[in-house]
Amino acid sequence: MKSLFFRTISVTFFLASFSGAALVDDHIHGGDSHLPRPVVVEYSDVESLASGNDDVRLWCESWRFAGEANNLGPWTTVPVECVSYVKTYMTGKRYAFDLEMVSREASRFARSIQMRTDGMDAWVFDIDETLLSNLPYYAEHKYGLEIFNHGLFDKWVEKAVAPPIESSLKLYEEILGYGFKVFLLTGRSEAHRSITVDNLNRAGFRDWERLILRSLDDRKKSATIYKSEKRDELVGEGYRLHGNSGDQWSDLVGSSTSNRSFKLPNSMYYIP
Amino acid sequence: MKSLFFRTISVTFFLASFSGAALVDDHIHGGDSHLPRPVVVEYSDVESLASGNDDVRLWCESWRFAGEANNLGPWTTVPVECVSYVKTYMTGKRYAFDLEMVSREASRFARSIQMRTDGMDAWVFDIDETLLSNLPYYAEHKYGLEIFNHGLFDKWVEKAVAPPIESSLKLYEEILGYGFKVFLLTGRSEAHRSITVDNLNRAGFRDWERLILRSLDDRKKSATIYKSEKRDELVGEGYRLHGNSGDQWSDLVGSSTSNRSFKLPNSMYYIP
Repeated sequence: MKSLFFRTISVTFFLASFSGAALVDDHIHGGDSHLPRPVVVEYSDVESLASGNDDVRLWCESWRFAGEANNLGPWTTVPVECVSYVKTYMTGKRYAFDLEMVSREASRFARSIQMRTDGMDAWVFDIDETLLSNLPYYAEHKYGLEIFNHGLFDKWVEKAVAPPIESSLKLYEEILGYGFKVFLLTGRSEAHRSITVDNLNRAGFRDWERLILRSLDDRKKSATIYKSEKRDELVGEGYRLHGNSGDQWSDLVGSSTSNRSFKLPNSMYYIP
Repeated sequence: MKSLFFRTISVTFFLASFSGAALVDDHIHGGDSHLPRPVVVEYSDVESLASGNDDVRLWCESWRFAGEANNLGPWTTVPVECVSYVKTYMTGKRYAFDLEMVSREASRFARSIQMRTDGMDAWVFDIDETLLSNLPYYAEHKYGLEIFNHGLFDKWVEKAVAPPIESSLKLYEEILGYGFKVFLLTGRSEAHRSITVDNLNRAGFRDWERLILRSLDDRKKSATIYKSEKRDELVGEGYRLHGNSGDQWSDLVGSSTSNRSFKLPNSMYYIP
């Protein structure tokens, strides 16, 4: 058995080790601006494992796993070696399966809840990469390899054509059907309220209790802080936050966390 | 793009939807005892996606990712369809890569910490599947398909031959080298203290500050509660918990959580 544990990886790759999203002072990608400064993380002091294409693929899979398990520090772009892997993942069956699995688990949990009659049982949904998919945009921008461009992304948002994530739409309708109050808590700005409503309606989402967007005061806050504050307010109003669905850990952690959190997959970008 | 989001999974499989570990009133697998009661979760109301062997593999991969992202509720055994997948994963490069990746990230974080001179900077490690590998045991017990057997597992533990997870041993030594106080916080019982010390030493682990095991009073507590209480005590003593490494979410969540948590992979068992 022992040889298993001695195998290690040798790949030199680029990772952004500075905190915050680079060149980003925007609606959905967090507050802080930092210069993009790719840092070479040396993986060359270990025995070569990732020596072939297949190993690079496995390495990228480990990178994806590490992100989904919240093991990675802040990162700005997909590692250059993993662009092909991320494209294959996001456009293939795996992403579809992963989305389906998380919706199923959320649905099972929602069904298990003993609802009260006071109308205060609640569920929180993020929007981007949770209810709506920006994959058509990212397909034109190398699936996360390009540093996030605020202006270009805004133009995409303003088209209001982001398709629904179908497994999330199904979950959303189930959640409404069970009688939960639905709160949409997004990093998008107030300036995009009406276009966001248009897009949500066009994609089939209706009947939410409240759509919460970033005000000007919120713009400099990290998503974790901003979303925690908004959840604190909901809890202060007496809502019981049973479930929370989001594609970023910053949607799910902090204060007033829900009873169960559901992390949707997203290997294209990171929001602090 | 749209067809991507319409694909769904159709597999009927066994999942344990009751809470707590079945037939378990043991040292490391949590407190509550429940009768094993496999529940068939019907996935047959959706269009077939997992129709071939490859799709079953992808489905199992989604199941694994859901576990690593803490999206699954409590489960008792690996789904029967996924035993082959889990075996391949645990005995192949992927597990090794995943372990390596999480140690690397933990190492990068540890290096980034500005240590103080008061000796109160601390790191918490779980033991089983974090520092020591029980893979030789699980290889004899179908990689998590068999319901956990307290007596048999105890016999394995008492041999004190669990090998180190090499990437964790390397991290452990780095962490010590940086000057962190290391706390080993395990679900194993006090009755196994000396055998655990023997195994740790044999595997190369030394110089921890404290080895914390379950007392009789702790036996009925979930791992989340027990470990939170022990971390509360450490924080009460003034330790700053920078990092926490564990293979179960119950190692990492609750109260007095560390600044960063590192979730090691484990697809063989779940501890509440």
